[in-house]
Amino acid sequence: MTFTVGVIGAGQLARMMIPAAVNLDIDLRVFGTGPGESAALAQTATGDWTDLEAVRAFAADVDVLTFEHEHVPQQVLRALEDDGVAVRPGSGALLYAQDKLQMRTRMAQLGLPNPEWAAVQTADEVSSFLASHGGTAIAKQPTGGYDGHGVRRITSADEVSDWLTPELLGAHDGALLLEELVPFTRELSQLVARRPSGDLAAWPLTETIQSAGVCSEAIAPAPGADAAVLAEAARIASTIASELDVVGVLAVELFETADGRLLVNELAMRPHNSGHWTIDGSVTGQFEQHLRAVLDLPLGSTELCDSCAVMVNVLGGPETPEARAEAEAEVLRADPAARLHWYGKGYRPHRKVGHINAFGTDVQAVLARARRDADLMHRDSTSPDSEVK
Amino acid sequence: MTFTVGVIGAGQLARMMIPAAVNLDIDLRVFGTGPGESAALAQTATGDWTDLEAVRAFAADVDVLTFEHEHVPQQVLRALEDDGVAVRPGSGALLYAQDKLQMRTRMAQLGLPNPEWAAVQTADEVSSFLASHGGTAIAKQPTGGYDGHGVRRITSADEVSDWLTPELLGAHDGALLLEELVPFTRELSQLVARRPSGDLAAWPLTETIQSAGVCSEAIAPAPGADAAVLAEAARIASTIASELDVVGVLAVELFETADGRLLVNELAMRPHNSGHWTIDGSVTGQFEQHLRAVLDLPLGSTELCDSCAVMVNVLGGPETPEARAEAEAEVLRADPAARLHWYGKGYRPHRKVGHINAFGTDVQAVLARARRDADLMHRDSTSPDSEVK
Repeated sequence: MTFTVGVIGAGQLARMMIPAAVNLDIDLRVFGTGPGESAALAQTATGDWTDLEAVRAFAADVDVLTFEHEHVPQQVLRALEDDGVAVRPGSGALLYAQDKLQMRTRMAQLGLPNPEWAAVQTADEVSSFLASHGGTAIAKQPTGGYDGHGVRRITSADEVSDWLTPELLGAHDGALLLEELVPFTRELSQLVARRPSGDLAAWPLTETIQSAGVCSEAIAPAPGADAAVLAEAARIASTIASELDVVGVLAVELFETADGRLLVNELAMRPHNSGHWTIDGSVTGQFEQHLRAVLDLPLGSTELCDSCAVMVNVLGGPETPEARAEAEAEVLRADPAARLHWYGKGYRPHRKVGHINAFGTDVQAVLARARRDADLMHRDSTSPDSEVK
Repeated sequence: MTFTVGVIGAGQLARMMIPAAVNLDIDLRVFGTGPGESAALAQTATGDWTDLEAVRAFAADVDVLTFEHEHVPQQVLRALEDDGVAVRPGSGALLYAQDKLQMRTRMAQLGLPNPEWAAVQTADEVSSFLASHGGTAIAKQPTGGYDGHGVRRITSADEVSDWLTPELLGAHDGALLLEELVPFTRELSQLVARRPSGDLAAWPLTETIQSAGVCSEAIAPAPGADAAVLAEAARIASTIASELDVVGVLAVELFETADGRLLVNELAMRPHNSGHWTIDGSVTGQFEQHLRAVLDLPLGSTELCDSCAVMVNVLGGPETPEARAEAEAEVLRADPAARLHWYGKGYRPHRKVGHINAFGTDVQAVLARARRDADLMHRDSTSPDSEVK
């Protein structure tokens, strides 16, 4: 093994680093929470990622420490950096993926396009924001939220009275984040990867489709995006990566509005669901690129392998092992070109258990094929049947 | 995990099954000979593959037993089959990959094109074959040879007198195999995969280039091959797969002669060096296809992802870990589109330590790029600089 990379977290994102690590002869070591997780094959330690001593022991003999999530506390990250561990991305960057209020403040400082937002501490401030934004807002706990947790759509201050307590406010930055309800026409994701040396590579802009707050489909390149939108998305993501000193993969989730503006929604500093299509659809997949970036190795080509690529998540899936085996065979039979990625997870309603990648020339046909494949895998269907915009 | 596959052998071929197994959620278990082998990540048992009890214990709880080499003795394979183990490919097929004399006899029975050959037991028979074949022949021990071992180019019976002993002849089939020195213009490989149910999928015909008896480069589709040659190669390989009841990947190594004939050279019943380009260059790579085939799952598309694909092996490679890290980075820097596959092996002269895949539209340019990349990895260079025919 030429290089050793430690990954905090043993879910599907760590799992999908394994093939890239095998190809590049990287000794990938995963820090999980217990047995049976998605990345169990590469797991070498288990523990609590908030426990400095446990993480410190794990990090002692890796070349680089990286993450499949942003939940490791700042004090743990900083202590490791003080130890001399190569923490990538570093605590200074991860802060903005951990704390939405810090993120909004920083985007504003950088002149990047935010939705309208405010940091609020009282019911009166909530009411005032609602009154000046059409009576509806998105309330977010600044830290600790993910996939829709810690986020509420509200029309009155009462709906967040339980979040305006001294305890909860104190657990964040002393304030709650309110954002306007953006009248977006679709959601986009701009993925880039960046090395410590500053080199940066961007994948084509991706359209994402959510299902009950969870990314469930991705289409690249984003259909119909004109040159101005592509340039603006690339400018936003590369500015964030450079200014925040992000190392590894950065996903910038964006809202596109009817009048053609892009607004920053969320940041993820790791491989991201919206980039799963890159595994099969671009020359260098996001998991390989993340490993290359955090090791400060030259980045790979992010060109598409075909005209378009699509990813459809399987949420839920077959409930029994027998049904699963049957459904898997059915997908393979129905679509000899489907690229399957199962996460080694058992059934739970709306749980992400895998995804299907497809590529080709006609985006409507490729998307229809991938959706049909995912349906054969019994995906929970809030199936979007809308046309791609 | 939906399916469990046991693999005998822990070299690079078993290693390259790991990414496919991760994607398809196959519990891949590898039977190696000791620590530190290429497929160590998936190794769950070690032992001697000629030891029935060791292999039997390993095979006890797998859905399917398969192989990365053909060296497991017939009596072990047959005992496992008697136990009810799903041995794929089975002993009846593997026999023809293990025994070159049996293979020649069977090809002849099937009317498939052999080089001229004879089974000989005495020096007189050797001399007689030489006299009627221009004074030169290829002598082969029927069993136990690989990558040029057990094979000699001879011009007199004296050169195999040490092989014509009762002991050595008895260890094989009581005879030695002689083959004419085929005046071939190039070597080709036709890869197919076959399920127990009979379904069969063929990849495009591949040209292979050897270096000191070892496959070191592969080009697909075989440049300049006309429709008749493509059809003949496909007919030969599918006949062999079907008639010999091969399950999994079958590689048929072929000689092409100046007058356009194809002759069967060797058979391999497993993923093969000549098919490494398929990992990145075709929709379904040979390692995934092998797993699908042995599990009797529907086969994947074998279409090329681009106009052509090329594989160049790195033989030898950098001698120290430091030189290796530097060379790896240099390749990534020089060629952002290179697809790298390292086998987790330390340096030895002419040892296969990895390969580089490249694809694109112009075969000369793609081949030049992959050779340059492999040279940056310090490959032992008997670098073929001939033009592709």
